[in-house]
Amino acid sequence: MNKTDLTRLLEEVARGTMGVNRAAQHLFNLPYEDLEYACVDHHRSLRKGFPEVIYGEGKTAGQIQGIMEKIISREAVVMATRIDPEKAAQITAAIPGTTYHTDARILIWQNQKPAMTGRGTILIISAGTSDIPVAKEAALTAQLMGNRVDTLFDVGVAGIHRLLDHRERIQSATVLIVVAGMEGALPSVVAGMVARPVIAVPTSIGYGTSLGGLTALFSMLNSCCSNVAAVNIDNGFGAGYMAACINRA
Amino acid sequence: MNKTDLTRLLEEVARGTMGVNRAAQHLFNLPYEDLEYACVDHHRSLRKGFPEVIYGEGKTAGQIQGIMEKIISREAVVMATRIDPEKAAQITAAIPGTTYHTDARILIWQNQKPAMTGRGTILIISAGTSDIPVAKEAALTAQLMGNRVDTLFDVGVAGIHRLLDHRERIQSATVLIVVAGMEGALPSVVAGMVARPVIAVPTSIGYGTSLGGLTALFSMLNSCCSNVAAVNIDNGFGAGYMAACINRA
Amino acid sequence: MNKTDLTRLLEEVARGTMGVNRAAQHLFNLPYEDLEYACVDHHRSLRKGFPEVIYGEGKTAGQIQGIMEKIISREAVVMATRIDPEKAAQITAAIPGTTYHTDARILIWQNQKPAMTGRGTILIISAGTSDIPVAKEAALTAQLMGNRVDTLFDVGVAGIHRLLDHRERIQSATVLIVVAGMEGALPSVVAGMVARPVIAVPTSIGYGTSLGGLTALFSMLNSCCSNVAAVNIDNGFGAGYMAACINRA
Amino acid sequence: MNKTDLTRLLEEVARGTMGVNRAAQHLFNLPYEDLEYACVDHHRSLRKGFPEVIYGEGKTAGQIQGIMEKIISREAVVMATRIDPEKAAQITAAIPGTTYHTDARILIWQNQKPAMTGRGTILIISAGTSDIPVAKEAALTAQLMGNRVDTLFDVGVAGIHRLLDHRERIQSATVLIVVAGMEGALPSVVAGMVARPVIAVPTSIGYGTSLGGLTALFSMLNSCCSNVAAVNIDNGFGAGYMAACINRA
Amino acid sequence: MNKTDLTRLLEEVARGTMGVNRAAQHLFNLPYEDLEYACVDHHRSLRKGFPEVIYGEGKTAGQIQGIMEKIISREAVVMATRIDPEKAAQITAAIPGTTYHTDARILIWQNQKPAMTGRGTILIISAGTSDIPVAKEAALTAQLMGNRVDTLFDVGVAGIHRLLDHRERIQSATVLIVVAGMEGALPSVVAGMVARPVIAVPTSIGYGTSLGGLTALFSMLNSCCSNVAAVNIDNGFGAGYMAACINRA
Amino acid sequence: MNKTDLTRLLEEVARGTMGVNRAAQHLFNLPYEDLEYACVDHHRSLRKGFPEVIYGEGKTAGQIQGIMEKIISREAVVMATRIDPEKAAQITAAIPGTTYHTDARILIWQNQKPAMTGRGTILIISAGTSDIPVAKEAALTAQLMGNRVDTLFDVGVAGIHRLLDHRERIQSATVLIVVAGMEGALPSVVAGMVARPVIAVPTSIGYGTSLGGLTALFSMLNSCCSNVAAVNIDNGFGAGYMAACINRA
Amino acid sequence: MNKTDLTRLLEEVARGTMGVNRAAQHLFNLPYEDLEYACVDHHRSLRKGFPEVIYGEGKTAGQIQGIMEKIISREAVVMATRIDPEKAAQITAAIPGTTYHTDARILIWQNQKPAMTGRGTILIISAGTSDIPVAKEAALTAQLMGNRVDTLFDVGVAGIHRLLDHRERIQSATVLIVVAGMEGALPSVVAGMVARPVIAVPTSIGYGTSLGGLTALFSMLNSCCSNVAAVNIDNGFGAGYMAACINRA
Amino acid sequence: MNKTDLTRLLEEVARGTMGVNRAAQHLFNLPYEDLEYACVDHHRSLRKGFPEVIYGEGKTAGQIQGIMEKIISREAVVMATRIDPEKAAQITAAIPGTTYHTDARILIWQNQKPAMTGRGTILIISAGTSDIPVAKEAALTAQLMGNRVDTLFDVGVAGIHRLLDHRERIQSATVLIVVAGMEGALPSVVAGMVARPVIAVPTSIGYGTSLGGLTALFSMLNSCCSNVAAVNIDNGFGAGYMAACINRA
Repeated sequence: MNKTDLTRLLEEVARGTMGVNRAAQHLFNLPYEDLEYACVDHHRSLRKGFPEVIYGEGKTAGQIQGIMEKIISREAVVMATRIDPEKAAQITAAIPGTTYHTDARILIWQNQKPAMTGRGTILIISAGTSDIPVAKEAALTAQLMGNRVDTLFDVGVAGIHRLLDHRERIQSATVLIVVAGMEGALPSVVAGMVARPVIAVPTSIGYGTSLGGLTALFSMLNSCCSNVAAVNIDNGFGAGYMAACINRA
Repeated sequence: MNKTDLTRLLEEVARGTMGVNRAAQHLFNLPYEDLEYACVDHHRSLRKGFPEVIYGEGKTAGQIQGIMEKIISREAVVMATRIDPEKAAQITAAIPGTTYHTDARILIWQNQKPAMTGRGTILIISAGTSDIPVAKEAALTAQLMGNRVDTLFDVGVAGIHRLLDHRERIQSATVLIVVAGMEGALPSVVAGMVARPVIAVPTSIGYGTSLGGLTALFSMLNSCCSNVAAVNIDNGFGAGYMAACINRA
Repeated sequence: MNKTDLTRLLEEVARGTMGVNRAAQHLFNLPYEDLEYACVDHHRSLRKGFPEVIYGEGKTAGQIQGIMEKIISREAVVMATRIDPEKAAQITAAIPGTTYHTDARILIWQNQKPAMTGRGTILIISAGTSDIPVAKEAALTAQLMGNRVDTLFDVGVAGIHRLLDHRERIQSATVLIVVAGMEGALPSVVAGMVARPVIAVPTSIGYGTSLGGLTALFSMLNSCCSNVAAVNIDNGFGAGYMAACINRA
Repeated sequence: MNKTDLTRLLEEVARGTMGVNRAAQHLFNLPYEDLEYACVDHHRSLRKGFPEVIYGEGKTAGQIQGIMEKIISREAVVMATRIDPEKAAQITAAIPGTTYHTDARILIWQNQKPAMTGRGTILIISAGTSDIPVAKEAALTAQLMGNRVDTLFDVGVAGIHRLLDHRERIQSATVLIVVAGMEGALPSVVAGMVARPVIAVPTSIGYGTSLGGLTALFSMLNSCCSNVAAVNIDNGFGAGYMAACINRA
Repeated sequence: MNKTDLTRLLEEVARGTMGVNRAAQHLFNLPYEDLEYACVDHHRSLRKGFPEVIYGEGKTAGQIQGIMEKIISREAVVMATRIDPEKAAQITAAIPGTTYHTDARILIWQNQKPAMTGRGTILIISAGTSDIPVAKEAALTAQLMGNRVDTLFDVGVAGIHRLLDHRERIQSATVLIVVAGMEGALPSVVAGMVARPVIAVPTSIGYGTSLGGLTALFSMLNSCCSNVAAVNIDNGFGAGYMAACINRA
Repeated sequence: MNKTDLTRLLEEVARGTMGVNRAAQHLFNLPYEDLEYACVDHHRSLRKGFPEVIYGEGKTAGQIQGIMEKIISREAVVMATRIDPEKAAQITAAIPGTTYHTDARILIWQNQKPAMTGRGTILIISAGTSDIPVAKEAALTAQLMGNRVDTLFDVGVAGIHRLLDHRERIQSATVLIVVAGMEGALPSVVAGMVARPVIAVPTSIGYGTSLGGLTALFSMLNSCCSNVAAVNIDNGFGAGYMAACINRA
Repeated sequence: MNKTDLTRLLEEVARGTMGVNRAAQHLFNLPYEDLEYACVDHHRSLRKGFPEVIYGEGKTAGQIQGIMEKIISREAVVMATRIDPEKAAQITAAIPGTTYHTDARILIWQNQKPAMTGRGTILIISAGTSDIPVAKEAALTAQLMGNRVDTLFDVGVAGIHRLLDHRERIQSATVLIVVAGMEGALPSVVAGMVARPVIAVPTSIGYGTSLGGLTALFSMLNSCCSNVAAVNIDNGFGAGYMAACINRA
Repeated sequence: MNKTDLTRLLEEVARGTMGVNRAAQHLFNLPYEDLEYACVDHHRSLRKGFPEVIYGEGKTAGQIQGIMEKIISREAVVMATRIDPEKAAQITAAIPGTTYHTDARILIWQNQKPAMTGRGTILIISAGTSDIPVAKEAALTAQLMGNRVDTLFDVGVAGIHRLLDHRERIQSATVLIVVAGMEGALPSVVAGMVARPVIAVPTSIGYGTSLGGLTALFSMLNSCCSNVAAVNIDNGFGAGYMAACINRA
């Protein structure tokens, strides 16, 4: 159910062809569908501005396909994250119009390009080359949710001049996503350069005391700059989603 | 040894055909069998109301089969948990009447359907689709121990209306098992809605700071509701077993 | 609001003197009171069978007193946990009829003795002398919620005969609470002796690798017996509450 | 140095009374003052839209006073966080016009009320009464940075109806800050109700497996909702600051 | 170099055919051989009563073979632990007289049976069937070092009668090794029954909060009995070795 | 009950003046006394060769005194550990003949000097001056249990020659206790020099990554020497007790 | 850009053929090349004395090759670490003159042997045979950066005489790198013997409480000797690099 | 014993007035003094170039004084770290010429100023004002060991221009010590600017996920720059000592 559907329903209420209580009931309780293994939440696009996104891990290809088909029947876009290539192959074969983004491990079906509704530009910065897949997951998500996205990869603090050289691009973004593993220092340095909100994404890149990304995460949460908030380790999708919510006009 | 066997023995004692000391000895010490690699505890069904359940991890198919055969010779039901498909294939081939439940990774042999002896209904709720295997392990266990079981899957807190919509089913259960990974918030919300005991089962679903289920577990142990107790991560069997003990008339 | 109030309200609905919608609204939304620093949940005794219990830590004596007075105006019993002696002194001075239980750090006001509505007896076992305060918190809670409570203190596994000597009392309880710090082995041993549900309560007693109770907790969650579920470290209150929910007829 | 100072400087450049290089030098390098124990960053209000905020922990009252005086000489507002009452007393005595907020442990000097420049309203929700000090730290920070702030305290998930009752206020906020200790479930539930960005603030309220707030933090980072990002444990200041950056028109 | 070699050397010193300094030098410095990738410590059997034992993990089959051959040239027994079947096959093919113990993952070469020089009997107890490989590693080590060994498997605390039934065997051992995973409660219970030293061996058997054996280890270190000391997780070899040192006449 | 009492009882059985069953009952069940807050285990000195030792932490001075008096009525020696000076003062005033050892925080009452029944000498080595209190707790315990004890303090690995200089004393001990904080390297070095069992005691001395003694403990459990087993952090008492059990002739 | 290039540039500045500002710009900002997936930092060899080293993990063979080719075009040596054999095969086939060091997992291209510019000798010591790959990574790095390197393998503290035997070699090194897993005691012992700086490298060799190398690392950071600093677990490269920086004449 | 004493001894050997063996014995074994509670290592200044430094934590003022007096009798300088003001007052009263440095918590006695024997300058940088005490501990240590020391305080990455402004001072140091708490990003940024070795010192400044300094430490060990090695949390002394060893001509 999107805003158009909603408007129609509300007009019926205004015309008296639908009672207020029934409408409220309809809006709050009905819009989910029980697939036995999943309760598809059709109400979500109304409540949150974007339809339910499918988290692929721990679900079979068949389950993912089933949920996607239910959403496709009502929405203009569907997105599934953390999809490995095998599941992707099965699903793209079964649902025409679905595209798989290998790096970002994201599956997308859409029946039209998303309108660019966000303000300005969301800039996505990665500290290293190995952090790029997570950065791309963020970029794809933000774009799909209607934002202009710019990227700046491999500008970690080991050579701070590479970063300073892009000061202008950095300072003109409306929201920034900074992706870094290892010591996770980059979000602090970037946040120190801008007044805008920075979403920090720790990655599991590193070894030993990187502790699978916990060190980068804890670093980011201890940033000496305060325009920083963090999402879960390797959660590019969440960062893109949060940035899009912030950037909504 | 079940209650019938026990009664017979006690009658012999009453008739004087068996001495008290010998009977006591028999009851307390004898009923286990030493297989060299396992001490099968035949006394357990008397002491605990259900025969010994075999924990499959770290045991060979041959060892599991050996223990099952010993229990089968004395009991009406045998259950083995955490059995992978390879071991299951070997054992079901060797012991007729054994059924393998793939999702729940449980192997069951029984010579009759269990009588429904529990009170009311045990309701098993899962937060997500990926938590279903653990939920099914709980469901199967509770059923086998003589309980009516109802299930409600994929009703996590991201769309709280899906949960509220089932308020009646939730409030009419006698015991509830709530299975959730990631942030593990669902048991708190459910427990806030009922007066009945809630068994919380954390799952290892999630990544990054889900810490393999520790975060969900710790969340559940910190529930702001007090009708909640937790079992180990992914321990659907334990939750089903505990719920059955609680639900015994 | 208790069951009597509720019945009265429902009778008004049956007589038509109150509309269904208004009643539903009343039941679901109204029964809490906003004190600015607290939303007292008067609906809880209806929903959960016992009024809201106040968690004392992090609240001032004034805040606790304010919440207690609001609950007293509507309920027959009020309970506040984790109250230190200083706050207790202030509050007992301000609210006549309030009793402070030093060991258990619990504050109770009640206008009548609770009816003994639970089945059989809840047995509370502690491994050591140092675990007694937590055991008493559990005992007091279960009693206040209408249960007969029996206790067995200092019967840890270092001298297993002390435990076995009480086999009869142990096997005749309807629910058991086992409180242990250090290695937390006692709940496993007790659970192996009974068919009834065991609530395990880890305590922070110990040093070094007891890790403030985490070791005892993890031990209990790994119990080789399955009729065990655990509550948070030192959470005697939660164990008593959960046992009472289980023991409700 | 604020925007007015900057404009003046740039005009000198345009008039040719100041060379470009000297201006660049001035802007980038000069605006900090070396107090031996601190490099006061006067450039920050230009770069970040708000002057340097003093982190009080580990600094002596004398050091804090010294830094405040330097900032006061150039800015309209100064803020110091994590100030205990003893230091606060010393500093308020030494610097007229300074106010100490006991709950939030914040010290503020300002020579005029901040203009309300943010969009809409920032709503700050706390799960429990004990979380209020952290919530107030967030509220004070966001207000000082030019935002309208609304608060909703003690609406944790144990009584979900208290939260649902405020659905309208929740859904009309432009940014939300949700403060919770223990299991940290509240941000997930709130984020599921809105399309706006939610800043989650874990608190150290709780005991045992709350692990000083780590459990709440990890819960929040594993939220099944994606419009959530987290700040450090008890970091109300950071949450307020981040929310203000997001809410800037 | 064994005691016979040593005696010969010392006699030469007594006869004056070898200077004291040269002898000291010989004894302290010489007896190791540099293989470039390993310094084989031939002095060890003199200093410690048993030749160097090879830790197989992280070494190639070729390196292990090389070190074994050097030791064989001087000693009556060689032992290598943590050898996987592939490496074992290569080495047993290359060095005649070498035996591989699959369960215990130990490789042994000896040119004569070890004399039984230990006192009484070392009893090795395992809590479960899955703990047997670690228990066998301990048994094999203790036997090779000259001790009579008895075993008692699968007598965990879930059925305490299985353990009590063997009280006599347990109380007649001179040293006990108790192997347990999961909650690690067995060493405490056994130690409570005897006056002899108990070596506790935690295993990595279990899941979730067993934390790969850390919980069992911490449990054992917190034993309420004091005749217990622990070795590393899954370190059956170390337990057998320590028990043999204790049991030396 | 000590060996003399036991012999008397058995003689009655032999003479027929006490039935076998009654005697068995007496031996297994009776010898503990219920003080309500403690079950004093009088059977322990028979079963374990030394009477119950009181763990002082978490017990009141009154409780400790009560337990001591009960044990004194039946045994020749009583020992209480982890007693702070305040409790010690109260108890020594109440029970004549009790001595407090300040460093070791141990309270001892004995009616005669213990006979030196252990073999050879137990050597207690400490890495640093700060580890001495724990070392003294071990020394006192071992002495009280009938052993000759020698000590060697402040010989950590920073100056390895201090240790090597005592090679003879080290190699002539029958059991060794090595106490070390910080990196916990000393037990490995000592164990490499001897064939005898080494009990390693980690201490909480250190800061930062010493993690309250966990690093020293983990180091000791990973010793490249195998004649080492560890006790809990700061557990000098346990080390002395274990060494005495090992050293029993 | 190396020192020769730099000198040329500065001479142009001196001659006036290049302006100061342009030169500064050139030096600070330009020398990196954007490959879209990587910003190759050509400035590094000037700033740090050695060209950018490629961290292979998480990069494709194609990305590594691309970066290597860009560096080869400007530098005399290129180094890539953590390269698995498959990637190595691809890259050595594509870039002539590249050598793969299997043990150290390092890929090197150089157009001339490095001049030996370091002082004295860097000595690399390993505790065990299993630590050799990490030690070789350190050795190769230090050599490539112009140092004489000596090695001493398998001289762990279990046989301290093997170490003491090499006292002279140890005391004559200018910098020492000590590589150890398990209990990580070796760096402390070595550092106690010398006045020179010791770089400690923990390895992930071990099991159980070695915690993947964390125990060795924490041990080293708690060394009772102060001429020790540590690098990350298994970071042989970093140790070699740091030693080379220290050893620079 | 210093170099002069040593030369005298060796001359005696050369003249034949002292035998080689006796001299060796003297040098290796003798130079420590047993105070019962401490083995003062007089050999250390010969072996390590600086006399034994006393770690004050866990030692009584009396013990510290005793050790200091022994060292004073043979050396020109004595240093004791981690001394609280109470102990300092006692000791400075007892030993004339002793100075207490409050910030650094260091106690120093010296009979002459140390000669400046180090190369160039050691630069000590702190990220924040709160890190200064640790930085001063490092500075004092390095100075006492004969080095010129420069400091740069409060130049954290939140305002990177403060750091860049000092590029020249930073690049001209021979060794750098960088002290930082919270996210610990500063050492990476500094190390990226220089070719010299950087000693990173994490501090416990921060809260929540700073984990008492572990996050800063892990960050530093994961630095994307390789000319960095770390010491323990808050270990300013160790950093100063290590830097002095590196900087020795």
